[in-house]
Amino acid sequence: MSYYSPSIEKLIEGFEKLPSIGHKTAVRLAFHILDANEEDVTEFINSIVNAKKNLKYCSKCFNISDSDPCQICGSPKRDQNLICVVEDVKDVIAMERTHEFKGVYHVLHGSISPMNGIGPDEIKIKELLSRIQNNSEIKEIILATNPRVEGEATAMYISKILKTFNIKVTRIAHGIPVGGDLEYTDEVTLTKALEGRHEL
Amino acid sequence: MSYYSPSIEKLIEGFEKLPSIGHKTAVRLAFHILDANEEDVTEFINSIVNAKKNLKYCSKCFNISDSDPCQICGSPKRDQNLICVVEDVKDVIAMERTHEFKGVYHVLHGSISPMNGIGPDEIKIKELLSRIQNNSEIKEIILATNPRVEGEATAMYISKILKTFNIKVTRIAHGIPVGGDLEYTDEVTLTKALEGRHEL
Repeated sequence: MSYYSPSIEKLIEGFEKLPSIGHKTAVRLAFHILDANEEDVTEFINSIVNAKKNLKYCSKCFNISDSDPCQICGSPKRDQNLICVVEDVKDVIAMERTHEFKGVYHVLHGSISPMNGIGPDEIKIKELLSRIQNNSEIKEIILATNPRVEGEATAMYISKILKTFNIKVTRIAHGIPVGGDLEYTDEVTLTKALEGRHEL
Repeated sequence: MSYYSPSIEKLIEGFEKLPSIGHKTAVRLAFHILDANEEDVTEFINSIVNAKKNLKYCSKCFNISDSDPCQICGSPKRDQNLICVVEDVKDVIAMERTHEFKGVYHVLHGSISPMNGIGPDEIKIKELLSRIQNNSEIKEIILATNPRVEGEATAMYISKILKTFNIKVTRIAHGIPVGGDLEYTDEVTLTKALEGRHEL
């Protein structure tokens, strides 16, 4: 038996379906919405509606954006011949935050994971290859997939194919995070850090 | 400079305005919405719209409800002559969870708090008194305000006025830990508190 009115119940259920929102938080959010003024709620709803309506994938790099091509692919300041390959839209944001990368991206929307039934055809690898084939000016492909089993497999797969294209293919370095501690670093990372050592 | 498209930015801002949602959670929720299918998002939006549209305060007890009178005031199974006075709509839910209370409620929508400029006229005390004056059958008023300074003051204030009405006025027992919150009290403690109520 429910103690709430049907409309509150529905609202709580709506919030509960969102990730990382438990029942108590959902109740708090629902009552916040009930107390909030009409204007704020309308603005909140519009932000959802507009996001779903306006956002599309960039047809070049498959980043999510209000425009096609996206802000990055469309910018004359970015080097179109340097492509950074990432797994996810959120990884683009992470790279952009460094302010160091002046090239463009290619979002794979996943990584090769046979355990989960995701093969090379399920992610945007074909699209990356046709992008490379259509642009003979490309200087370098940086593989910035996550340093996990799936990300490594994806990087290996792409680099093998790209060998035939005669393009420079690089992988972002693995090592100890800045501010990290040797003592608490796992063996695999430490081995990678050793392997990737460079002359000073 | 923002790394997100304007529509995503707006959506993240929308979530950030909700209580207990920080920036990282807002980003996670926003991307969840972007990935969710159209149907689920429409359902979520409708739950908000309907809640804001349908919910109103019960004109008898000031509980929030889809109907007026609310489910509880309108139920023939409930004893209309036994009124439990609570501070907040969420406290009604807490009481209902005990399955022990068969009367009706009166929601004050606050407690007397001179420090915050809230006097007896700012909460629904007048409405409680007129409710009592219009019903000569009332047997008992249970004061179930929170056991904090403000709640105690409110209970004392109401009990003093009601002395002149010659009605039994009781206060829920301090089975609830002092300084606690009705909303988060477990059912057993709350049942004990109901059983141990004493005349003022």
